[in-house]
Amino acid sequence: MKTTQDKFQHRINDYLATKLNDMPQNDPTLHQAMTYGLLLGGKRIRPFLVYSVGQMFGASLNELDDAAGSVEAIHAYSLIHDDLPAMDDDDLRRGQPTCHIKYDEATAILAGDALQTFAFELLCQSAHSPVTQIAMIKSLSQASGYQGMCGGQALDVAATNQQVSLSELEQIHRFKTGALISAAVELGAIAGGANTQELCVLRQFSKNIGLAFQVQDDILDIISDTATLGKPQGSDLAANKSTYPALLGLEQAQLKAAALIEQAISSLEELPYDSQLLQDFAQYIIARKK
Amino acid sequence: MKTTQDKFQHRINDYLATKLNDMPQNDPTLHQAMTYGLLLGGKRIRPFLVYSVGQMFGASLNELDDAAGSVEAIHAYSLIHDDLPAMDDDDLRRGQPTCHIKYDEATAILAGDALQTFAFELLCQSAHSPVTQIAMIKSLSQASGYQGMCGGQALDVAATNQQVSLSELEQIHRFKTGALISAAVELGAIAGGANTQELCVLRQFSKNIGLAFQVQDDILDIISDTATLGKPQGSDLAANKSTYPALLGLEQAQLKAAALIEQAISSLEELPYDSQLLQDFAQYIIARKK
Repeated sequence: MKTTQDKFQHRINDYLATKLNDMPQNDPTLHQAMTYGLLLGGKRIRPFLVYSVGQMFGASLNELDDAAGSVEAIHAYSLIHDDLPAMDDDDLRRGQPTCHIKYDEATAILAGDALQTFAFELLCQSAHSPVTQIAMIKSLSQASGYQGMCGGQALDVAATNQQVSLSELEQIHRFKTGALISAAVELGAIAGGANTQELCVLRQFSKNIGLAFQVQDDILDIISDTATLGKPQGSDLAANKSTYPALLGLEQAQLKAAALIEQAISSLEELPYDSQLLQDFAQYIIARKK
Repeated sequence: MKTTQDKFQHRINDYLATKLNDMPQNDPTLHQAMTYGLLLGGKRIRPFLVYSVGQMFGASLNELDDAAGSVEAIHAYSLIHDDLPAMDDDDLRRGQPTCHIKYDEATAILAGDALQTFAFELLCQSAHSPVTQIAMIKSLSQASGYQGMCGGQALDVAATNQQVSLSELEQIHRFKTGALISAAVELGAIAGGANTQELCVLRQFSKNIGLAFQVQDDILDIISDTATLGKPQGSDLAANKSTYPALLGLEQAQLKAAALIEQAISSLEELPYDSQLLQDFAQYIIARKK
């Protein structure tokens, strides 16, 4: 899987770099900040999901670039805004200064705003039929907005310094990170022409890997070190955020992540396709060190 | 025109209130902040343009609500973000506390983000054909992003405390306010089934009214008073922003606005439709006191 992951990572980086390069550079600072936020490293797991799921349904990589790029642009914008002083106030992201540290707050706000718009622009430009394009835009907008990622971030901000229950924590993460991971899977499936039943099975898969991803993130915040993570180890604890290990204990959190991945893999078995890559990816989520 | 303006204003307020009400209230604070930002007054000139242009081409008001709402949602999100301390740092908007004063900065950032997404969600939900929907999303995203409103705001922030030329000021405003006003006209025209030539004529019209709108805004910042404006009079001057009256003198700025409106009205004469409402609106732009 590592080779495929690298291949998809290079592909999406090249694609996004080309798209950014094609823009007229009216405002060099804003353009640089958008590029910085969008191209500075990252595991590119959302594009990986778009490519893997799309390919499984027979789509070519060319047919998946716009969808992969759009989900990553939404992710990048959300990181820029989440890092702002008024939000998580992080200075470091992927081992580098965050966007508002590298530039300034006004530029970081605008770069995030413009990257959100950019995501929808990419989906309008794709070579898919208008019906498919609209299905993708609908999926991505639902996952990003009030009923998805933004709503989850708002719940997360509200929960800081508060005692939250396990079900509340789960709701936060289903919205905050789960929704966009599900959208990545869904966009790949839509581009590949999946039917309603297949979409339903994939929603089970992505719901479970999305939550497992967050549980593992929380675990890594405790057991990993700052150099590996690229951000300060223990930052959740320092920010007084509720986490799975804090609520369940480390061992139970690890068991929970493993159980979610097992469920995710078992739903893939319902699909009459070669889902090896997605199975490997599911395993990678809990095996990763950063 | 006043009666029609009031009718459209009520219509869009009702439409947006219903759409917001239909959302599940997962996060009451974020929902309230979005509602506050979107429903708190405003002249609703962008919805007015969508409705007037669409009707001119024979579209029903029902067919125009989503487009009108989406442009207003983009406008509302941009105001929330522009008012932030890192941007224009305004405490007052339409005579009321700005969103980050009423709530807090994190909520205001997220409310803006979610309102941008909401705009694209509205366009996906519309009853138009997917081809028409995609044309609208393309137009709105181009007008809102790096090559439109966000780019203009970035240029505006960069120009604060700088000496800018008249052509630079014009570029800032064509991007910052002009692009979205043009998108309002274009969305109405697309919904009404305008052809390429008609769209081209309307682009001339909207380019001129968009710029005239900004020139008049700059003039009002000097000649009006705080109570009428709903924001501190003289705030451009206080923020050391370049304005048309500062570059041209008050009288020349007024003449420029009048000339732009004259050009706008003369392009309408090329269209074989009853454009009285748009002509009246163009006159209103330079006659308005706030």
